[in-house]
Amino acid sequence: MRIVRFSTGDSFSFGAVGSPREQPGELVVAELDGHPYGGISLTGRTFPLADVQLLAPVLPSKIVGIGKNYADHAAEMGGTVPEVPIVFLKPSTAVVGPDAPIVYPEISTEVHHEAELAVVIGRLCRDVPAERVPEVVFGYTCANDVTARDLQRSEGQWARAKGFDTSCPLGPWVETELDPSNLAVTCTVNGETRQSGRTSEMVRSITDLIVHVTAAMTLLPGDVILTGTPAGVGPLQVGDEVAVTVEGIGTLTNRVIKRG
Amino acid sequence: MRIVRFSTGDSFSFGAVGSPREQPGELVVAELDGHPYGGISLTGRTFPLADVQLLAPVLPSKIVGIGKNYADHAAEMGGTVPEVPIVFLKPSTAVVGPDAPIVYPEISTEVHHEAELAVVIGRLCRDVPAERVPEVVFGYTCANDVTARDLQRSEGQWARAKGFDTSCPLGPWVETELDPSNLAVTCTVNGETRQSGRTSEMVRSITDLIVHVTAAMTLLPGDVILTGTPAGVGPLQVGDEVAVTVEGIGTLTNRVIKRG
Repeated sequence: MRIVRFSTGDSFSFGAVGSPREQPGELVVAELDGHPYGGISLTGRTFPLADVQLLAPVLPSKIVGIGKNYADHAAEMGGTVPEVPIVFLKPSTAVVGPDAPIVYPEISTEVHHEAELAVVIGRLCRDVPAERVPEVVFGYTCANDVTARDLQRSEGQWARAKGFDTSCPLGPWVETELDPSNLAVTCTVNGETRQSGRTSEMVRSITDLIVHVTAAMTLLPGDVILTGTPAGVGPLQVGDEVAVTVEGIGTLTNRVIKRG
Repeated sequence: MRIVRFSTGDSFSFGAVGSPREQPGELVVAELDGHPYGGISLTGRTFPLADVQLLAPVLPSKIVGIGKNYADHAAEMGGTVPEVPIVFLKPSTAVVGPDAPIVYPEISTEVHHEAELAVVIGRLCRDVPAERVPEVVFGYTCANDVTARDLQRSEGQWARAKGFDTSCPLGPWVETELDPSNLAVTCTVNGETRQSGRTSEMVRSITDLIVHVTAAMTLLPGDVILTGTPAGVGPLQVGDEVAVTVEGIGTLTNRVIKRG
């Protein structure tokens, strides 16, 4: 199932994307009653997908990022894979949805794209053992872990470099039926391929990451884990259109704009 | 005014602490209608302070911490004051209130106390200029930036070291009428003084910190900025009672327990 959050102009709802039996070629959004965690119920209202504005498909209380989880990206950053996963946080205020602008921050002159598979958590969890990880995963979406590379180098801790407003595009939807173990992850800028990797190249598996993160902190429904980016990160400029595609999910597209 | 969040067993409310005219010696909590940001209205219900359970006085969407903001603490950590403030994030799931336990995390064997003055934000803000900082500050409370020092050293990024569950005690209340420029900040463990500093020793002022943080990210009502800790940080053990006192606010006390 593909779960979205959407606006029809006067309201914000969760929804499920699908094709009605009578119109198999058309995509519609079936509005959910409340949130999708713990069971789905429909209001009965549907909207053509083309007529709604898709929002970030989750409202995370926190986004937990993982650094250098692809060996080729660790190498391009001038390092090796760390012995312990690098865990960092992006705040909820960094989240934007599909087709929303990435606002180039005035505190940086070197903003990079980082295409990633994002895991969406479905239930409150802590100290999750490996064998129970499937129970806490709600689904998967595309993420761009937009990073001010100059601040990342100069500030030591990454809160400003990876936590500025609009630095966490998520979407277009959460795919709940997906085997995440071997998916193509790509990033294009203005149609040109910049990053191309496969989730099978992750140093630590999604299971290992959830065990590691929840050994320290509780995750809540809608919280997001970013699983790291493959090689090919590079600069974004004002005016660029950046697109993250994860096989089996879809494409998350955002344009970079100047602060207005 | 002193703003609390409290429970009477069956409900959770914000409240204002004061003494009724007819009983000047007694402290009561006057229940607020909704939240205190943007104006206060009372429900008319009051409770003796001694009869309610105080909770963390805010529900922050994020906690923004500042590293090495007292020169003597930077020195004891083996370093100097950084050229740019060190900014890190603690998640909302780390927050606990006064008298709530600090649960010693199983992933660490070196958990330290860090007594701090915490700033509570009162309105949504971004790119706050220095002269408008007073408009966005709601008040001040006491914080303990509990830190797994071993993980802080070994993991590079501090998300697990400073973001584990119960690593952010806040309270006992938000004092809205306070000049924060020269207040004693102390920490005791089992009654013995471990940290003792004054906010006048901060390397960067509260104004500078809010300008610096909001140059990157939006702050929301109830968000918290931790302003750094003076020298004297040290280990906590299971069974310890740790108390953070900030002059003009009060004392935040928490006991360290083993995971049950």
